[in-house]
Amino acid sequence: MASGINLAVIPGDGIGPEVVAEGLKVLTAVLPSEVKLETATYDLGASRWHRTGETLPDEELERLKAHDAILLGAIGDPTVPSGVLERGLLLKLRFAFDHYVNLRPSRLFPNTPTPLAGRPDIDFVVVREGTEGPYVGNGGSMRTGTPAEVATEVSLNTAFGVERVVRDAFERAAARPAKKLTLVHKNNVLVHAGHLWKNTVDRVAREYPDITVDYLHVDAATIFFVTQPQRFDVIVTDNLFGDILTDLAAAITGGIGLAASGNINPTGAFPSMFEPVHGSAPDIAGTGKADPTATVLSVALLLRHLGYQAEAARIEDAVTADLAERDAAAPRTTEAIGDALAARVAN
Amino acid sequence: MASGINLAVIPGDGIGPEVVAEGLKVLTAVLPSEVKLETATYDLGASRWHRTGETLPDEELERLKAHDAILLGAIGDPTVPSGVLERGLLLKLRFAFDHYVNLRPSRLFPNTPTPLAGRPDIDFVVVREGTEGPYVGNGGSMRTGTPAEVATEVSLNTAFGVERVVRDAFERAAARPAKKLTLVHKNNVLVHAGHLWKNTVDRVAREYPDITVDYLHVDAATIFFVTQPQRFDVIVTDNLFGDILTDLAAAITGGIGLAASGNINPTGAFPSMFEPVHGSAPDIAGTGKADPTATVLSVALLLRHLGYQAEAARIEDAVTADLAERDAAAPRTTEAIGDALAARVAN
Ligand SMILES: CC(C)[C@H](C(=O)O)[C@@H](O)C(=O)O
Ligand SMILES: CC(C)[C@H](C(=O)O)[C@@H](O)C(=O)O
Repeated sequence: MASGINLAVIPGDGIGPEVVAEGLKVLTAVLPSEVKLETATYDLGASRWHRTGETLPDEELERLKAHDAILLGAIGDPTVPSGVLERGLLLKLRFAFDHYVNLRPSRLFPNTPTPLAGRPDIDFVVVREGTEGPYVGNGGSMRTGTPAEVATEVSLNTAFGVERVVRDAFERAAARPAKKLTLVHKNNVLVHAGHLWKNTVDRVAREYPDITVDYLHVDAATIFFVTQPQRFDVIVTDNLFGDILTDLAAAITGGIGLAASGNINPTGAFPSMFEPVHGSAPDIAGTGKADPTATVLSVALLLRHLGYQAEAARIEDAVTADLAERDAAAPRTTEAIGDALAARVAN
Repeated sequence: MASGINLAVIPGDGIGPEVVAEGLKVLTAVLPSEVKLETATYDLGASRWHRTGETLPDEELERLKAHDAILLGAIGDPTVPSGVLERGLLLKLRFAFDHYVNLRPSRLFPNTPTPLAGRPDIDFVVVREGTEGPYVGNGGSMRTGTPAEVATEVSLNTAFGVERVVRDAFERAAARPAKKLTLVHKNNVLVHAGHLWKNTVDRVAREYPDITVDYLHVDAATIFFVTQPQRFDVIVTDNLFGDILTDLAAAITGGIGLAASGNINPTGAFPSMFEPVHGSAPDIAGTGKADPTATVLSVALLLRHLGYQAEAARIEDAVTADLAERDAAAPRTTEAIGDALAARVAN
């Protein structure tokens, strides 16, 4: 554990700055006074792009490397062509810092809304591969804009990349009581990538005889997410399937206002990055309606990653307690929720 | 309308033969005596592959072309390596017969179970592209099985292929009261394919000023499927996203026991193929537990496609009536459900 935390903060677009402010408030409140928190805010996102045309200049990337971790709000704005900030900033960070474990826990807290009848017990974690698959940006188009256009997207998958994230998922499953790992892919259609994933899981599984291993096609997995989410413990899956499944997971566990994520480089070679699963929600930016809880829970993941287990648990307990007392008929502002959580963790 | 129907039947694997038998029973019962029904059964699927190593020989493909339509049960068996039958038979048919409109209606019938609290009104149709995208089978692997393996999957998208399915979706939206079309893609990450899809929809939209057009990323779409499915009317999407979304759609509207689909070639150049969305469910094959309703509803889609509107409506009404009287505590056998539906449509 470091004697201090040197944190990079990328507030980003839309509600990003608002939720990040509350995340930092809670982080400051939870840290013991002997842990020094240093933060550096990076001006990256839509307004920077409009001003300078830059998404993530090399010098900024270089500076970011020096931090212990990164807290990111949200990226994306309707005034910027789709893909420019996503590919040029968010995904560039995930790839440059080799965030191969995109960790997305899902838990249905008591007293939180779910669209599912019967309020099933939900407590699983998706280990989404973060540096390969259809996200690599290998594709293009020719005769663009003409009736003869052809556009491609290439999913790249390597034994190296698949095995390291699969091993991480097995380790996480081994540390959980249910000890179950489900691989989600589509190996009856995407036979080459699917074969690599399935073979890797089968091979590594031999080293973990205590873990129950299961396979589901991605389409079938979405069915079980809504009919039987209790069956999941740890899910390991590729970048795109993980993207889709974790939004669905958020939807069934109180909505994206509560879904936290970590883009983790387990080797420590580069700083890991923590961010709410939700987007920049430009429609509610500035209204005080954004729920900062997903960011606060991402701060807990950040603390866990840096070794501050007790502080992470205090934040999670505070969120549980806060959610238990929420009254859907009396919504609080972004700031009020942040204040309440900060007060709880400080006690 | 033809004076008779020359139907190819591919019962396939697992519960396929059982549900197809009931589908044919209902089809026979609904047709007026002056419409002659001829059927030819094709022995394709796992047992053929085990016997001969063949999935879909060229002569069979040639013979299939002569039919007015194809009714398919289900393909896939645990004794056959994943992908062999899916790629070699089911997808081969969809591609060879240029089934570019994979039509999958979703409706929450009264008295059917849904995992969603509050039983929202659900009545939408997914127009899934059927001949392109990540399903084209363009990919491979090298150094397979070694730590240096690389596996690729290429999504191919053409202006030709996208525009024709988008136009079909607009026509379907124009014929529905809500007149709304939602494009689902992931154009902030899959920028090349996403750009082609988005541009095509925006351009064709100008010819349909009465239709409200909307765009959602696939991850966000899964959220709305469970929190606000009423917002959807017609959805147009690519082959893989359509696969995922339609299983989720089935899950929220009574399960895959009710989800029908048509693999349609609107030009009539090749026979269209109708099949339940569910798989071969080997675990319940032979037990009489399979619900043939999805196949029966697929027969209704088949009749509509061939111009038998009244007969199609009779089947849909029979299913609605049958579902309204179902008692979850007293499940009936596959055959009993088929008998009941056949009796209803005959009246
Ligand atoms: C904004 C987008 C690029 C991103 C993704 O697709 O990974 C988001 O949906 C997420 O899940 O973090
Ligand atoms: C069996 C499989 C190849 C198929 C698909 O992926 O299209 C199925 O899931 C479907 O939706 O019809």
